[in-house]
Amino acid sequence: MLKLYGFSVSNYYNMVKLALLEKGLPFEEVPFYAGQTPEALAVSPRGKVPVLGVRQGFINETSVILEYLEQSQEGPALLPADPFARAQVLALCREIELYIELPARACYAEAFFGMTMPEAIKEKSRAELLLGIGTLGRHAKFAPYVAGESFTLADLYFMYSLNLACGVGEKLFGLDLLAQLPKAKALLARLNEMPNAQKVEADRQAALPAFMAMIAAKK
Amino acid sequence: MLKLYGFSVSNYYNMVKLALLEKGLPFEEVPFYAGQTPEALAVSPRGKVPVLGVRQGFINETSVILEYLEQSQEGPALLPADPFARAQVLALCREIELYIELPARACYAEAFFGMTMPEAIKEKSRAELLLGIGTLGRHAKFAPYVAGESFTLADLYFMYSLNLACGVGEKLFGLDLLAQLPKAKALLARLNEMPNAQKVEADRQAALPAFMAMIAAKK
Repeated sequence: MLKLYGFSVSNYYNMVKLALLEKGLPFEEVPFYAGQTPEALAVSPRGKVPVLGVRQGFINETSVILEYLEQSQEGPALLPADPFARAQVLALCREIELYIELPARACYAEAFFGMTMPEAIKEKSRAELLLGIGTLGRHAKFAPYVAGESFTLADLYFMYSLNLACGVGEKLFGLDLLAQLPKAKALLARLNEMPNAQKVEADRQAALPAFMAMIAAKK
Repeated sequence: MLKLYGFSVSNYYNMVKLALLEKGLPFEEVPFYAGQTPEALAVSPRGKVPVLGVRQGFINETSVILEYLEQSQEGPALLPADPFARAQVLALCREIELYIELPARACYAEAFFGMTMPEAIKEKSRAELLLGIGTLGRHAKFAPYVAGESFTLADLYFMYSLNLACGVGEKLFGLDLLAQLPKAKALLARLNEMPNAQKVEADRQAALPAFMAMIAAKK
């Protein structure tokens, strides 16, 4: 059986978890907090979550896990078969990851964990986030899903990146990042209502207190 | 015919260009400096290079272009067919991009263009670069190629990211990033000797003076 290594508070973990649930694939969740210990690095070369455990070994990097599931497993397709349409979905995934999630991530410590980030890093994130949101507005279809009529991998990136990025925008910069994108807001609400998304969210909520306590203990 | 939009000084452009050359695919190079003009954003949603022009439209993001070429075009495969082996190659590509190229990129302006970066950003890049190099040392095979016996997409990421990252390491931090990875150094030398890589490098050298003049004019 597929094993999903990670923890329920991780947004990347939840992208893969929702993909597994939507595809109807059986999987076992293995608690794994990653980090830089030799044991963690034997599972995940950069010490990050999630990791997928399969018969042959470990697969790391969310984007790679998601494509592996598409290529090798049963269930509803989350990528189009046509190469050009597939490329558009994957480009949207990368744009959300590189230009929205990663700049927002550089500020999670201040936005969500009460730490303080250097101004230079916040300024860089703010500028990049605004360009990333502009990119999304230009490339996404929101018709009603990110890449068009079907739920795809781009929606996974969207739902589990925009929520946090919007939190960063609001808390650190006083910005409503989706103010100019009402269709994106409507889609976020719609995606959050998916039964499997509600299960992922319930697991996240249940895991949050212990996670916050762990962060506080490390401070 | 496939059209490759971008410019010969861009390392991401050169990843795709070498892939096209290695696969023996005919393509036309279209000079495109990207940026945030409406014209550029109509080609590239984030205003970046490279972009691949195909019959149906534009494909952006290097990783997406490279996979599109694998899926839709003739020529020697640069990804394994087996899903697990393919995932390992793609994970190496992501690790090099996210944990080596991107932290190094945050410092290119100081390392290569005579500008000054805030200390907070340099410190973050330094820490991330060291973790990224550690990741490469753990995950890459260097046997002799990054992912094993064959030249793959991971070698494209490697050769066109490590050269610049090593420049950043040396110029900004006085570090030889590959000091502990002699096989990586040997591979870099071997890859640079590939006839098509030499053509890419000759084009880069030829384009460099005009590019540097453009950067200087913008300062």
